[in-house]
Amino acid sequence: MKVSNGRIHRALPGPSIIPDKVLQAMQRPAPNIYGGELEEITMSILSDISKLAGSKGRVALYISNGHGVWEAALTNLFNEDDKILTISNGVFGKHWGNIASKLGIEVVHLETDTASSMLLNIEEISELKQSLNHPALLLVDSIACFGCDDMKMDEWGVDLLLTASQKGLMTPPGLGYLVIGERAEIQAKKVTKKSAYWDWGPRLDPTNFYEIYFGTAPTHLLFAQKAALEIMNEEGKDNIIKRHEILASTVWKAVDIWSQEGVLKFNVTSKENRSHAVTTLVAKNYDLLPFKNWVEKNTGVELGIGLGFEGPEYFDGNSAFRIAHMGHLNPHMLLGVLASLEMGLIAANIPFKKGGLDNAIDYLANSINSES
Amino acid sequence: MKVSNGRIHRALPGPSIIPDKVLQAMQRPAPNIYGGELEEITMSILSDISKLAGSKGRVALYISNGHGVWEAALTNLFNEDDKILTISNGVFGKHWGNIASKLGIEVVHLETDTASSMLLNIEEISELKQSLNHPALLLVDSIACFGCDDMKMDEWGVDLLLTASQKGLMTPPGLGYLVIGERAEIQAKKVTKKSAYWDWGPRLDPTNFYEIYFGTAPTHLLFAQKAALEIMNEEGKDNIIKRHEILASTVWKAVDIWSQEGVLKFNVTSKENRSHAVTTLVAKNYDLLPFKNWVEKNTGVELGIGLGFEGPEYFDGNSAFRIAHMGHLNPHMLLGVLASLEMGLIAANIPFKKGGLDNAIDYLANSINSES
Amino acid sequence: MKVSNGRIHRALPGPSIIPDKVLQAMQRPAPNIYGGELEEITMSILSDISKLAGSKGRVALYISNGHGVWEAALTNLFNEDDKILTISNGVFGKHWGNIASKLGIEVVHLETDTASSMLLNIEEISELKQSLNHPALLLVDSIACFGCDDMKMDEWGVDLLLTASQKGLMTPPGLGYLVIGERAEIQAKKVTKKSAYWDWGPRLDPTNFYEIYFGTAPTHLLFAQKAALEIMNEEGKDNIIKRHEILASTVWKAVDIWSQEGVLKFNVTSKENRSHAVTTLVAKNYDLLPFKNWVEKNTGVELGIGLGFEGPEYFDGNSAFRIAHMGHLNPHMLLGVLASLEMGLIAANIPFKKGGLDNAIDYLANSINSES
Amino acid sequence: MKVSNGRIHRALPGPSIIPDKVLQAMQRPAPNIYGGELEEITMSILSDISKLAGSKGRVALYISNGHGVWEAALTNLFNEDDKILTISNGVFGKHWGNIASKLGIEVVHLETDTASSMLLNIEEISELKQSLNHPALLLVDSIACFGCDDMKMDEWGVDLLLTASQKGLMTPPGLGYLVIGERAEIQAKKVTKKSAYWDWGPRLDPTNFYEIYFGTAPTHLLFAQKAALEIMNEEGKDNIIKRHEILASTVWKAVDIWSQEGVLKFNVTSKENRSHAVTTLVAKNYDLLPFKNWVEKNTGVELGIGLGFEGPEYFDGNSAFRIAHMGHLNPHMLLGVLASLEMGLIAANIPFKKGGLDNAIDYLANSINSES
Repeated sequence: MKVSNGRIHRALPGPSIIPDKVLQAMQRPAPNIYGGELEEITMSILSDISKLAGSKGRVALYISNGHGVWEAALTNLFNEDDKILTISNGVFGKHWGNIASKLGIEVVHLETDTASSMLLNIEEISELKQSLNHPALLLVDSIACFGCDDMKMDEWGVDLLLTASQKGLMTPPGLGYLVIGERAEIQAKKVTKKSAYWDWGPRLDPTNFYEIYFGTAPTHLLFAQKAALEIMNEEGKDNIIKRHEILASTVWKAVDIWSQEGVLKFNVTSKENRSHAVTTLVAKNYDLLPFKNWVEKNTGVELGIGLGFEGPEYFDGNSAFRIAHMGHLNPHMLLGVLASLEMGLIAANIPFKKGGLDNAIDYLANSINSES
Repeated sequence: MKVSNGRIHRALPGPSIIPDKVLQAMQRPAPNIYGGELEEITMSILSDISKLAGSKGRVALYISNGHGVWEAALTNLFNEDDKILTISNGVFGKHWGNIASKLGIEVVHLETDTASSMLLNIEEISELKQSLNHPALLLVDSIACFGCDDMKMDEWGVDLLLTASQKGLMTPPGLGYLVIGERAEIQAKKVTKKSAYWDWGPRLDPTNFYEIYFGTAPTHLLFAQKAALEIMNEEGKDNIIKRHEILASTVWKAVDIWSQEGVLKFNVTSKENRSHAVTTLVAKNYDLLPFKNWVEKNTGVELGIGLGFEGPEYFDGNSAFRIAHMGHLNPHMLLGVLASLEMGLIAANIPFKKGGLDNAIDYLANSINSES
Repeated sequence: MKVSNGRIHRALPGPSIIPDKVLQAMQRPAPNIYGGELEEITMSILSDISKLAGSKGRVALYISNGHGVWEAALTNLFNEDDKILTISNGVFGKHWGNIASKLGIEVVHLETDTASSMLLNIEEISELKQSLNHPALLLVDSIACFGCDDMKMDEWGVDLLLTASQKGLMTPPGLGYLVIGERAEIQAKKVTKKSAYWDWGPRLDPTNFYEIYFGTAPTHLLFAQKAALEIMNEEGKDNIIKRHEILASTVWKAVDIWSQEGVLKFNVTSKENRSHAVTTLVAKNYDLLPFKNWVEKNTGVELGIGLGFEGPEYFDGNSAFRIAHMGHLNPHMLLGVLASLEMGLIAANIPFKKGGLDNAIDYLANSINSES
Repeated sequence: MKVSNGRIHRALPGPSIIPDKVLQAMQRPAPNIYGGELEEITMSILSDISKLAGSKGRVALYISNGHGVWEAALTNLFNEDDKILTISNGVFGKHWGNIASKLGIEVVHLETDTASSMLLNIEEISELKQSLNHPALLLVDSIACFGCDDMKMDEWGVDLLLTASQKGLMTPPGLGYLVIGERAEIQAKKVTKKSAYWDWGPRLDPTNFYEIYFGTAPTHLLFAQKAALEIMNEEGKDNIIKRHEILASTVWKAVDIWSQEGVLKFNVTSKENRSHAVTTLVAKNYDLLPFKNWVEKNTGVELGIGLGFEGPEYFDGNSAFRIAHMGHLNPHMLLGVLASLEMGLIAANIPFKKGGLDNAIDYLANSINSES
């Protein structure tokens, strides 16, 4: 007996849920790649990305995933033996550092926390840097929360921002972006040796259109990205950011109650440090696998795996999971997830305090009413 | 401020939610309509429909909506001045009677109830008819619940069953079906005058394949219907019926609590008489329009309008609404609806008793565990 | 060894080739059917169809194929024992007459010709009728050539026009249209008994939106039809008609040469009487099946079967075939068909005169240059 | 007046024409990227690519275009100051050399010809290298003709093969492949410094599935690529190669005649050296722009631009164009192109000898008959 034969809701922190219009946009033949419509689409994408980043900087678009733009950023900005400090929340900062090491860059890694789904306070870091009068460039990987958490790149003093298509940008994976601030452009000119694929020089100042892509353009992903940005433009950046804040807070209101008893806890304790894109929950020394399996088998909801929770106290990752609340998301979808989770907690006999869902609903009802 | 910018869930009692694979199946060129693949697809659809109906009868497929097959059924089975008794729950029985009147058939209308979303007990009616030794044919319109509520046409003594593509069959509207029992086939031969479009004779016994459609076949709807039936065959009729029973009961568990206080009531009081495809709620002498508008504007859920609730005591229909729970549906989707409703009740200050959602979740958790 | 593994070009006279944008338009969830966007789409379709018909008459839209609107037209306009004259080119006029007979209408059938793909001169017939001062209504079935051959319904004195979605309208089959002139509207009011499904009364003057469809609207076919009409509006009726004239003439230029020797002949000898939508070729007393099979197996072109060519002198239809040149068609697609045919004639050793393709190309080059 | 309002045929040498089933395959939600179905799809793609390459070597899959895998190949195989010889036909060999130079590799460039659409005889080059007993690795960029011209990588002694999704593989651009022979695997282990994105080590021997993609998998491109490979597997490699040979030869038969008089010439004179994927035509000292514009505006065919034809004698590239005949192609599509070209030559008054199309048709008819 299986009751989950409907539409699967993947509450995975990317690739995120793709709107119908975005899928629809890929339903067309390959275009001419030497200009015309594709050039217009490209220009509008680049412009939209920088606006979403809150920057007047130019944008380099790479056919790659997020790891690709990590490498692109490092390649353009650093010479061998340069030194970088990585401040990491979760596993990805360490990975970025590894890429730098392979490029011969000296890496100092600052492990703030293993706190996956934590949001670094970029503004504070930037202010600290400025108060020290330190000339370092500030690079920010916002892939996981771009288009979900607010980003005011220029105002906050960020020199280079990384993002990619498959999370808040609601597009299939395969496009990576660098938003390049003025200081980063200047620094890049001092770097003597760059691989041709990552070198953003000709991508920013192409002689021919195709140099923006250093070769063949990723035509269908561009059609999709353009459609997704049209949806985002229609909603407006402010509304998008506010919607994510409210929906993330709705999740937290549920967890606030659930975690008052039993095993389930926030991975990031302080609300101020949590991302609005994804929430990580952990049950240290408790195996959540039966719960996660029950939810996945029976409700139509798929949860994100816990990354970076190794060791027996985390049952090799099975003590943690992530709830994505990014991109194409509304109360129906999100409350369906929270209700499925509360049901799974009951069904799998996980110790928790009931009432989280009710608390979430109360909060959300009030938030909508007070905002309208 | 709008938080509903995600995927819309239309809890409308048809056209229902279409699975991605069904939409995908229409993404192809028009085929040759004189045979080949289209003939195979047609034959497999006809066979699947009769199996879902629980009948060995043959199936006539019409390009039409449900009203079309109402007319088709009457045209094939009755001469002018024949007499029929319509037993109606809700508005549609009356409509069918009107069609009969226009064809010159004498109609006696039995208004059991205005109870939209009520399920007639076909088996009991059949037994009553047999106990009276009455020769009348038993025609059943199962459009609204086919593939949701159980149907054992032959076992229950149904002579003709009507259904259509856009509800439990999860396919865009435009296909209507008659499943024709032995007695109906015999009776049809006695009818002297039939319009050519509705006459099922050549459709059942075509000389050329295209006569099954009396002309051009509805190619893309057939591709869609075939894909939907593949999904249904994979799940299996028994599981489909059981899933609908559980999901419908989940809705009722919520309403059981909500209706203990305040204005909201089931339209069909007795659980035994409720369809597993849709539930109608009413708040007599209370205007639910602000509530319905709030839900639609803010949650991403669209509710079915109340049909057949005229008059000031129903605020011209605004005191009623329908929740479809048919077809492509799982706990995530359904609990998202119930949670959105409970949130809307709070937000729009509707008098109701809290706890419905919790009750629904408890029930569903237990049902899944006890069935597995 | 098979070289035909590319895109199939079905030169079939309906369902015709569907533009990508039309397929794309169906790639969306079912909408609310009680108004909103669907109402706007409907109104714009009805308005576009009457404009394409060259009429100020209103339009009734049926979920059906062409045979359905044949019945709809007869049902609305005639009482039993009324008398109609059908003027038929090919098999379909006879079929329409059969439908009338089943409705009790007296039919006089005028067999002008078995000339499938012949275009009747509607204007001349209308003038004849007027010169006789005859009060009969003039009904025209333009399904096969609507949006291909010109139609000036009001100017030519046509009282009722029938068409359907799947030919020049480039949409999957399932929608039939009646464009209703003033005299037809008046006559319909005199008809006392009409079946409810076909009765255009409530469809033209609905109390509720859904009465336009007498029940559930054919949502996805409407999305498709709307997209197709947008393409047509962008091109403009005059250009569409002129393009079909040029492309049809291109086919004829090829056949002019091919038929100078050997077996292949036009079914309609006089150019003035040929439709711009489809051309029928016959080879009396010659079996073209090996040729048709060769083309279909080896080139990627599918040809329309010959309808109405029974008897041994036509090898039970195998002596005839149809080339559709309707709807979504340009020189690349059409010349590919003609080249494939000339290749097939060579490969299958059919007696014919070479040079048809060259003649077609010369004509088309000149036509384009002289029009621009 | 425009007669080209049908389906556009882009005879562009990539991105090539995408089969409907491949577009259809992308019409689905994003999957879980940590395993399951996506892992199976990946494994089947990697296996299919190596079979099409005629190799037992392993395959590394990159999210990138062709330029990306150029860099990937160089990064894995060479240390700084290593020396490579590039043998180039057309512009792309030079570009690859430029990438190498930026990586610090010493490049000797052998300009065989500016002959775009020329096919290098890999087997001869391999034999020469072996006869000299030279230890160099043989790297082959087969992007432009993979799945069109034959490739027997292992038999011919190729150590590394590059290809990408958007040509013979009939998939939207964004996937690049390296097929890695035994000697290449050994050599890669000697390279001390590799960028992490391009390093094929973890991609070939991943600890976790996602390392195959060094991060997020390009989900929808993989769905598309899988669908395209299913089509190719159904046809079979031998048939694919033979079909391309016949279709390419059909083009050449037309050009053989056209070029006997007037301005149009093959860019690659010797038939043995021409690729079966694309044919380049040139008219030295003659401006073909009016011709190319006429074809594009009036026929529905788009031609590939001439790359690498600078200078006034080539009117800055306007004296050359390319006809792609790769991938999803059958006689209807190809003859439509050739007929459109012959028509364009007439209409734009280009000096040429008539009869090319007839010659092509004769050849193709005979070839199909002699192969069957």
